[in-house]
Amino acid sequence: MREEDVRFMRIALGLARRGEGLVNPNPMVGAVVVKDDRIIGTGWHERFGGKHAEVNAIEDAKRKGHDVKGATMYVTLEPCSHWGKQPPCADRIIKEGISRVVIAVEDPNPLVSGRGIKKLRAAGIEVEVGLLGEEARKLNEVFIKYITTRIPFVSIKLALTLDGFIATESFSSQWITGEAARARVQELRKKHMAIMVGSGTVLRDNPRLNCRLDNCPEKVKVVLDRSGRVAEKVRRGKRFNLFEDGRVIFFTERPELFEGVGEAYPIIEPREILRKLGELGIDSVLIEGGRIACEFLAFADKFYIFYGPKLFGRGINPFECLKVETAERAFPLRIDSVEMLGDSVLVTAYPGGRDVQWNR
Amino acid sequence: MREEDVRFMRIALGLARRGEGLVNPNPMVGAVVVKDDRIIGTGWHERFGGKHAEVNAIEDAKRKGHDVKGATMYVTLEPCSHWGKQPPCADRIIKEGISRVVIAVEDPNPLVSGRGIKKLRAAGIEVEVGLLGEEARKLNEVFIKYITTRIPFVSIKLALTLDGFIATESFSSQWITGEAARARVQELRKKHMAIMVGSGTVLRDNPRLNCRLDNCPEKVKVVLDRSGRVAEKVRRGKRFNLFEDGRVIFFTERPELFEGVGEAYPIIEPREILRKLGELGIDSVLIEGGRIACEFLAFADKFYIFYGPKLFGRGINPFECLKVETAERAFPLRIDSVEMLGDSVLVTAYPGGRDVQWNR
Repeated sequence: MREEDVRFMRIALGLARRGEGLVNPNPMVGAVVVKDDRIIGTGWHERFGGKHAEVNAIEDAKRKGHDVKGATMYVTLEPCSHWGKQPPCADRIIKEGISRVVIAVEDPNPLVSGRGIKKLRAAGIEVEVGLLGEEARKLNEVFIKYITTRIPFVSIKLALTLDGFIATESFSSQWITGEAARARVQELRKKHMAIMVGSGTVLRDNPRLNCRLDNCPEKVKVVLDRSGRVAEKVRRGKRFNLFEDGRVIFFTERPELFEGVGEAYPIIEPREILRKLGELGIDSVLIEGGRIACEFLAFADKFYIFYGPKLFGRGINPFECLKVETAERAFPLRIDSVEMLGDSVLVTAYPGGRDVQWNR
Repeated sequence: MREEDVRFMRIALGLARRGEGLVNPNPMVGAVVVKDDRIIGTGWHERFGGKHAEVNAIEDAKRKGHDVKGATMYVTLEPCSHWGKQPPCADRIIKEGISRVVIAVEDPNPLVSGRGIKKLRAAGIEVEVGLLGEEARKLNEVFIKYITTRIPFVSIKLALTLDGFIATESFSSQWITGEAARARVQELRKKHMAIMVGSGTVLRDNPRLNCRLDNCPEKVKVVLDRSGRVAEKVRRGKRFNLFEDGRVIFFTERPELFEGVGEAYPIIEPREILRKLGELGIDSVLIEGGRIACEFLAFADKFYIFYGPKLFGRGINPFECLKVETAERAFPLRIDSVEMLGDSVLVTAYPGGRDVQWNR
């Protein structure tokens, strides 16, 4: 691999990321067309149902008066070989006479997985696979989990004091983290199709759970309301902010209370809730509720733990449902990165102590 | 200020840092002698009682055959004007014919504070003060606190799980953080003259509390043993590892138990304990005990909070003695930096919500 290849693929990855939150449950994909070591066209998958990155890049080059015959394409995901909402990209690449394709990662989609590459090679195109593959896989961690398991990618977001509390003993928790951290939460909401909380959070804070960024699609709001407490309040005339926009889905033991109130399913097992959300086409869930985070701990794919510059001493711990007797039996995480966000800190982590398993 | 000035002062700061842990309770100081924009001599204060940085830099230049007359000296702290263990540096600088002196920060030592600068200026030397002053003050935060208050600089070091526990409910806490974090703790021990723990830690873990780095001076070990539990065990023949090297100091309500056992003072108030340590010439204390950290929280100058990649769910919280009722009443910190250390994270913080006060 030449240094230039890495540089172009990095640009393609940057383009792909522009689709974050806009293409779900499709993957983010970026593509760059290069001729004589110069970029002649760029494209990315811009929105769900829209044209694919490869086609956008080819058309961008042509629009600018370039001939793509004999060019190299850098694309972050294997070009598709099947008809979905769009015609197969592999066919288009062949038709346009592109002579070399560099691919970051194979498509994990069982409908594609290697067939796009095979098709390109059969047409005499030089194909290289794996450049910046790890970055590309991480970029599409949501897509990869969902396409291979049909279970949504589950992220747990927490805001803690530096000594680990989500609230004081009196459930006071306003402004643990600063403004920059709260702005980052909006980006996390953009990345995920659904936001999930427990009924306690709805009753106590009455959050809207929307995404306030520009061009952010409406979020699906998922509420675990085992005993139907939210439904009962709605029946008595209470208006909750989360009904202001987006779809609201309840999981409950008492579906009868939700007639006329909202969409509800008689499911309370975390595993079954996730399976149902997957069936409903939801590829990703951001769990924001404090205590329900613990119920879904075993199913979490990623952790976003924000720490505010404060100490409470005592209060509510986020994972109280865990019962770790000795330090060796701790629930293991693998810290991926840390960063300062204004006066606060964000630690991003994955479940640890084993390789990340997409097929749980 | 020219860019070159900044560059040379940064080098001087780097040299100063080489004295960390070796010069206490003196300040770390670095000096660079520059002629025609080239460094002709460098020096730093290498060990307590040794030559000062300015003299070392001048002698380094001469040893290499340079004439320092007309040169510029960059020094991280105001040159002294009084006789201590060494003759006054200001006199030497004047005698050598150095024509310009750039100083990062005035000496906060009441015996110096501005007098060195005055002396240099009176001799016709061009003097500039304040270049990279903030870095220089931070470098010598221990010295500045101690010289101005005679109370040691107090650092609290904690190793927590990501959900904020120092141990499980059964007091199990081995290996919360990884190897790289533990190596950093050795550096912290090097920086501080004394390590302080509670008797519980001594009885449970029997730590040696030494510094295992090369050239690290022996540490003073301070144990809070209110009821004399450690002394009673010693009297019954138990050998504790912390007696293996360095001075051991106990603070207790029962000094009579310590006769023949070790140095002990009948003091139990945190404020008075610190005052006593200051009197004994100790400029810095690293508090490593879990629960005693909370007793000294109000006197802490700095926090080193290590987070290991684990969750306990429940367990021992470090600051249980704090009673914060609502989030607005939280104990405020100011996060200074975050970094990954192997599989763990280190958050460095200062007491927040007010300017750092050296004169508490």
